Amino acid sequence: MTVEQFATRHIGPGPDDERRMLEVVGHDSIDELMDAAIPEVIRWHGTLDLPDPATEAETIAELRALASRNTVAVSMIGLGYHGTHTPAVIRRNVLEDPAWYTAYTPYQPEISQGRLEALLNFQTMVTDLTGLTTANASMLDEGTAAAEAMTLARRASKSKSAVYVVDADALPQTIAVITSRAEPLGIDVRVLDVERDELPAEFFGLHLQYPGASGAVRDHAGLVEAAHTVGALVTVAADLLALTLLRAPGEIGADIAAGTTQRFGVPMGFGGPHAGYLAVRSGLERMLPGRLVGVSRDADGNPAYRLALQTREQHIRREKATSNICTAQVLLAVMAGMYAVYHGPDGLRDIATRTHGMAARLAAGLRAGGVDVADVAFFDTVTATVPGAAAQVVAAAAQRGVNLRLVDADRVGVSCDETTTDAHLREVWAAFGVPAFDGAVDAALPVDLTRGSDFLTHPVFRSHHSETAMLRYLRRLSDFDYALDRGMIPLGSCTMKLNATTEMEPVSWAEFANIHPFAPDAQTAGYREMIGQLESWLAEVTGYDAVSVQPNAGSQGELAGLLAIRSYHASRGETHRDVCLIPSSAHGTNAASAVMAGMRVVVVACDDDGNVDLVDLDAKIDKHRDALAAIMVTYPSTHGVYETGIASLCAKVHDAGGQVYVDGANLNALVGFAKPGKFGADVSHLNLHKTFCIPHGGGGPGVGPVAVRAHLAPFLPGDPLGAHADATPAISAAKYGSAGILPIPWAYLRMMGAEGLTRATGVAVLAANYVAARLRGHFPVLYAGNKGLVAHECILDLRPLTKATGVSVDDVAKRLIDYGFHAPTMSFPVAGTLMVEPTESEDLAELDRFCDAMIAIRAEIEQVGSGVWPAGDNPLANAPHTAAMVSGDEWSHAYPRSVGAYPAGVDRAGKYWPPVRRIDGAYGDRNLVCSCPSPEAFED
Amino acid sequence: MTVEQFATRHIGPGPDDERRMLEVVGHDSIDELMDAAIPEVIRWHGTLDLPDPATEAETIAELRALASRNTVAVSMIGLGYHGTHTPAVIRRNVLEDPAWYTAYTPYQPEISQGRLEALLNFQTMVTDLTGLTTANASMLDEGTAAAEAMTLARRASKSKSAVYVVDADALPQTIAVITSRAEPLGIDVRVLDVERDELPAEFFGLHLQYPGASGAVRDHAGLVEAAHTVGALVTVAADLLALTLLRAPGEIGADIAAGTTQRFGVPMGFGGPHAGYLAVRSGLERMLPGRLVGVSRDADGNPAYRLALQTREQHIRREKATSNICTAQVLLAVMAGMYAVYHGPDGLRDIATRTHGMAARLAAGLRAGGVDVADVAFFDTVTATVPGAAAQVVAAAAQRGVNLRLVDADRVGVSCDETTTDAHLREVWAAFGVPAFDGAVDAALPVDLTRGSDFLTHPVFRSHHSETAMLRYLRRLSDFDYALDRGMIPLGSCTMKLNATTEMEPVSWAEFANIHPFAPDAQTAGYREMIGQLESWLAEVTGYDAVSVQPNAGSQGELAGLLAIRSYHASRGETHRDVCLIPSSAHGTNAASAVMAGMRVVVVACDDDGNVDLVDLDAKIDKHRDALAAIMVTYPSTHGVYETGIASLCAKVHDAGGQVYVDGANLNALVGFAKPGKFGADVSHLNLHKTFCIPHGGGGPGVGPVAVRAHLAPFLPGDPLGAHADATPAISAAKYGSAGILPIPWAYLRMMGAEGLTRATGVAVLAANYVAARLRGHFPVLYAGNKGLVAHECILDLRPLTKATGVSVDDVAKRLIDYGFHAPTMSFPVAGTLMVEPTESEDLAELDRFCDAMIAIRAEIEQVGSGVWPAGDNPLANAPHTAAMVSGDEWSHAYPRSVGAYPAGVDRAGKYWPPVRRIDGAYGDRNLVCSCPSPEAFED
Repeated sequence: MTVEQFATRHIGPGPDDERRMLEVVGHDSIDELMDAAIPEVIRWHGTLDLPDPATEAETIAELRALASRNTVAVSMIGLGYHGTHTPAVIRRNVLEDPAWYTAYTPYQPEISQGRLEALLNFQTMVTDLTGLTTANASMLDEGTAAAEAMTLARRASKSKSAVYVVDADALPQTIAVITSRAEPLGIDVRVLDVERDELPAEFFGLHLQYPGASGAVRDHAGLVEAAHTVGALVTVAADLLALTLLRAPGEIGADIAAGTTQRFGVPMGFGGPHAGYLAVRSGLERMLPGRLVGVSRDADGNPAYRLALQTREQHIRREKATSNICTAQVLLAVMAGMYAVYHGPDGLRDIATRTHGMAARLAAGLRAGGVDVADVAFFDTVTATVPGAAAQVVAAAAQRGVNLRLVDADRVGVSCDETTTDAHLREVWAAFGVPAFDGAVDAALPVDLTRGSDFLTHPVFRSHHSETAMLRYLRRLSDFDYALDRGMIPLGSCTMKLNATTEMEPVSWAEFANIHPFAPDAQTAGYREMIGQLESWLAEVTGYDAVSVQPNAGSQGELAGLLAIRSYHASRGETHRDVCLIPSSAHGTNAASAVMAGMRVVVVACDDDGNVDLVDLDAKIDKHRDALAAIMVTYPSTHGVYETGIASLCAKVHDAGGQVYVDGANLNALVGFAKPGKFGADVSHLNLHKTFCIPHGGGGPGVGPVAVRAHLAPFLPGDPLGAHADATPAISAAKYGSAGILPIPWAYLRMMGAEGLTRATGVAVLAANYVAARLRGHFPVLYAGNKGLVAHECILDLRPLTKATGVSVDDVAKRLIDYGFHAPTMSFPVAGTLMVEPTESEDLAELDRFCDAMIAIRAEIEQVGSGVWPAGDNPLANAPHTAAMVSGDEWSHAYPRSVGAYPAGVDRAGKYWPPVRRIDGAYGDRNLVCSCPSPEAFED
Repeated sequence: MTVEQFATRHIGPGPDDERRMLEVVGHDSIDELMDAAIPEVIRWHGTLDLPDPATEAETIAELRALASRNTVAVSMIGLGYHGTHTPAVIRRNVLEDPAWYTAYTPYQPEISQGRLEALLNFQTMVTDLTGLTTANASMLDEGTAAAEAMTLARRASKSKSAVYVVDADALPQTIAVITSRAEPLGIDVRVLDVERDELPAEFFGLHLQYPGASGAVRDHAGLVEAAHTVGALVTVAADLLALTLLRAPGEIGADIAAGTTQRFGVPMGFGGPHAGYLAVRSGLERMLPGRLVGVSRDADGNPAYRLALQTREQHIRREKATSNICTAQVLLAVMAGMYAVYHGPDGLRDIATRTHGMAARLAAGLRAGGVDVADVAFFDTVTATVPGAAAQVVAAAAQRGVNLRLVDADRVGVSCDETTTDAHLREVWAAFGVPAFDGAVDAALPVDLTRGSDFLTHPVFRSHHSETAMLRYLRRLSDFDYALDRGMIPLGSCTMKLNATTEMEPVSWAEFANIHPFAPDAQTAGYREMIGQLESWLAEVTGYDAVSVQPNAGSQGELAGLLAIRSYHASRGETHRDVCLIPSSAHGTNAASAVMAGMRVVVVACDDDGNVDLVDLDAKIDKHRDALAAIMVTYPSTHGVYETGIASLCAKVHDAGGQVYVDGANLNALVGFAKPGKFGADVSHLNLHKTFCIPHGGGGPGVGPVAVRAHLAPFLPGDPLGAHADATPAISAAKYGSAGILPIPWAYLRMMGAEGLTRATGVAVLAANYVAARLRGHFPVLYAGNKGLVAHECILDLRPLTKATGVSVDDVAKRLIDYGFHAPTMSFPVAGTLMVEPTESEDLAELDRFCDAMIAIRAEIEQVGSGVWPAGDNPLANAPHTAAMVSGDEWSHAYPRSVGAYPAGVDRAGKYWPPVRRIDGAYGDRNLVCSCPSPEAFED
């Protein structure tokens, strides 16, 4: 390979590194290693049919050409997606800054205080604006947030009814997502004109849109009261910008608020990613799905942030989980929260007032020109009636570079936003054939819904309004955090590999960023061609026949795949098939997704080697043969092993009439060497944020396409706005999910080509085996497959050491911070262990630095075990060490400061210092605080 | 102002801040303050005639429209400007990263180790490739580097001759710059065909191009020997990429090498900015102009970097300085050095070999098609002879999207580079009317000039070849440094204000970045319109009649302005006017520039208030009346005062037949309130990197346009390639200098408008007076004008304290690091003082944080003075404190660790830690090492 080939940049180890690693692992070549590691029964020996790899420059040129086939029009379609000005300081220093976008989910809170604070800002923004008490750290989009609100309402409602009432003026894609989610759960969705139709006698929940999709702003207080009377909970899907001027949902009695924060500086991106939100009134906070940031305290008693109520995570609750959501939209939530920080309450009110003013002028102009505009209060959206001429008006506007909403043959919707200008209004008037309007206009907001309450009163929303101040705040927060730009994040199952700049750059281009998801096809040819190519390449890589990129997280891909299986069985008249087998080693999300897909979970045992116990499998199949819908397995297994029984497992399930779901979380160990679609699986989801280089963004965005064999293709997700919305489920609010970041995996595949991808897999497996070989003498390596080899990750067993010395997995993880590392995955899939996945992007120097650190820590554990250091006061128990701690005037610990601060091998000058000491998570759960603490809390 | 208006983002203090500051300063409004501060005699009361301010989004849209009027063609013109692939990881994490681009010149080395290491990489790269021993930290461009080489040769040569011989195959723009510089210095430049023409009997220097502009690679060893025989020094202007394959200049006996590093990943940018380079053989290192990074050691004896040989700076040597260069092209030098780090020696050789292969195939194809190609060895450039048809071929190529070089009516030059593809060659062949060529080709490099020596052997060039490793290296280095993204840099005279993202973003756009400076006018309409607007706006702001943006640093603007004065006198037959009056308070560059413009410097005294002593002025004018060419003054003065005598000063000089040069360094105190071109000055240079928001980039790029009244307009810099090159001087190699960054000041002016600019000036003056008012009780504030007011900066006098306590200005500056600040300007213009310029971009919180720190430091000085802390061991003497120091196992200092580490008010969690302790500069100057030290040097 030459200097031009991207694969040499993506893959860390060079030829010399590779030789040395092979030596240690004891194999002659990567090919030979892979032959030994991968069971021949699944091995695929072809060459991936992908275009020859392009250089970085060629790839950018090709993406430019695709982008140029998209048309950036003025978007006045509305429906929850609005033009917005991303403040440049936020774009450059968040969206385009690796310190933010390469960060991992903040499971290690001591090294994640920056993004945790940013998320707390987000939560505070949402609770302040909605008038509720607790908001989570973001949802995948407005549609899924609304669907989660529905299931939350069902859990919380005292009503026994299965009826969920949805405002007909809700966003159509939200209705589609709610309906899709409701069906497998047996929820009866009734879409009603809540202003006119009678409500059912009983229902457990009510979904209202505020303002409505039509633009109408209505006083919902009466409906809320009516719902509460029958024991139903009320969700208000509210526009946060409108809430700066309107009474908050919490002030009219809503129990839940859901929505999107897209228009707070997050580009439309043809549908995503954006941060949805979900907020609840007091009393419901412990039922919130998703991630929640809370305030706790560290070992010095200082305030410190961490994820709250982590026991709710799926990997603990499994099939009892109330939601399958794992990831959030952290990067986008950070952007939206920072937008509020930058503008502050006055700025947001200015923007809202200006937006409303535009809409009011627009309506006045239309009326002055004789167009019939609905006589209701509105915020930013106007619905005009032009009998029989709607399509013609919309087409005329498109000709003038403005997209309007075609409501039906007679009605046109027009939405204003912060980017709307006088010139845009003139184009709209012209499209309607009315003269430009220049008169004075009154506000069209309902007086009795005027907001009276304050919001964003915390100083953080009043301190960073100059760009200089904002820049420094962003830098300060990002400096708190450890991301891939500092060093290795060896997280098992999470594949924290390079997120290359060339992959990231196109995300910011206007031709990808500023496209409305419902823009006319003629304006999105480039996007759709790119997505089509990406889907076909992913199909080639996985051996499936069809792929949908709609699911905007891995969990959503799981749900989509299971719903496809469900629909398949139904299409064959086998609706009784509802049992989903899941091995005990599976990620808990699998079980949660199965429940959401209306299936019953039956657990299959694993044997002592961590493999699926085929005897138990037979027994479970026998027991549930007629009801068997599917099995969900991860391959390589969550234990990081290429199980040899996989082909046989697939055959057994198929023989019993079931379908095989292979979770693609570990696809990084297969690409180029085996194809799930060819070795027996029927469906998989892929994690584009793992194997295909979408960055983790500090906990999202993820993208989880679903890939299926041909017989399941008819049941893939459909267009939430499409004619067939009833036939195929709406998994996300937008047809292509988080389309805006699909240039990333497209570029990765385009630049790597068949050879690069295959080599990446080989090096990833080599690296994991190298780490295993170097550490095996110091920590037992759990589980291995053929010839003692692991796949792309390895599990280090700390349980014997913990038993002997009291040093816990937590202690080791925190001590790794002192050595300059992010900890591996803790206690998954086996409690008391660490799972290490180095990926192909780490070079030998970094792998060795990690192994050396682990070996040094092993020696430190010995010191505790031998009594040199007391169990309660040693560098492990006290880890991580802050600069303030090691430079304190007093030092009474049993080891010198230098041992705490600068363990062997640490880069002294460039050392990363965590801003807080170890955090007491339980304290924060007992004293739940999920919004910004007062500045006084931080005083010494 | 509303949230949309950029001025509210650029200006730090909001309305509340402003009120509080006015209260402290004791004025009712900014207008009233400015009325009091600025002498009415110079006050201008109009409103600047600029377009109404645009929002950030509108500005980007307008720049997009301008950019779209440029055409990005395939550039095969060559002549020192080549297509290059900027590695995306370097673009995003250097060029687009505020941690790099908002940094200041590394005068405070303890907080600049990152960029100093990056510059040391650059120097090592240049010395390795040129085969010489010492290179400086970059030059402004190849033309000025060559001109500096000429004057260096003159200083070093034993020859008494004034003759300088220049290879006719040198780059034409280099010849123009050399000629322009030589004339006022009395140097006789002879441009000769050095292969054929006889050399003069005596000459002091010889300039060779390697490879030549024609592409020819010749063995210059014989010429070098001949030059040395007559005591001349030889400069080889060499292409660093070619040197990966060719014998190094140092290996053929060259004394000096000069050139550009543009093709190492730095975009062409229509001419700049790029990092030029200058390297010398052993024995000449102490004669190097510009900045030189060297290795020294810190208080712990660890290796540490800092600027070496600082006594050479102009502010010390003044009229005895050998060059007026102040700034370098640090940001671009960092990029070029990192390009070498990323590719390493093998990668660079690959790129060179590929580039050469393209040229060889091109030549073979042309010859196969019957085109006459010069029969010489070449590297990347081929000259083809097509009698009478050259223009036609060039036009045909342009039609096909490829720019070639029109040498003359019969000859066409074609240059290949790393971006050249087979498709490009096919277009070129087609333009020449020859068939595409597909045969095998031999290399056309001269065998006896093949490089045999190694280069880039230091590990830094062999360790960061994956993008992951590169990203982390860049992050590690930038984390070492303190830039505007961390906090205030209150540097007097340097105006470290916000460099807004919206101003910076267009710099990366291909339509600005990838334009060759000699591209046909038809392809650069957008650039030229933007530059024309910028020049006219700058003229409006300054009150002058004409502006040239060509000078690519303030010093070059000075030279251009003085040369205009010189030419003006000459045009009136007054060549005898050669005395330049310069006040003793002036920046040393003024004097150096005057000498370079062929003038004699006569110093005018200042009175006790720091103002120009008008009595002494009268005396000096009287004494030199007939020879008086000019006076150079800075306004407001370098003392930060609006001198009331300025109008009278101008009149006196004019009366004596002299011209008035007002140094625009302090223009930030005038914009909107006074116009130099209207209050008596004839010419000024502006520092776009001070007043107009081009970032300092860690020590460059700067841009120093020259502005003149109408009578001097004919003498402004000319096009170095233009027909009138003889009539007007070539100040830089490219007509528009560093055109690539001119979108920055354009955007600033476009977004601020008249009101914003005027308000910025008022707030800048308010901020300086606020700091003066808060600190006056703790440190004497030197100099003030009307009503005790300073202008935009204030001087804090530490001399009495130093005398009483021994605590030096240096101690205070270093102690400010512990408090989280960059020090103000030290000992300029008055030794023993600190000059503070807060600018308009710092908000009140940051101003107060600074004042509080200074007051706390004052109290610390008391502790030393009162003997509580010993003179040699106190927090000031030991500052800055590193984390390693305050967490050391031993602590024997006279104060607690916490006082060293966390003085009052410091953000404990977010504290910036310098990577080294105080640096011993003198040690490094005695033991000069200017390339990367071995890794062993850093071992504990």
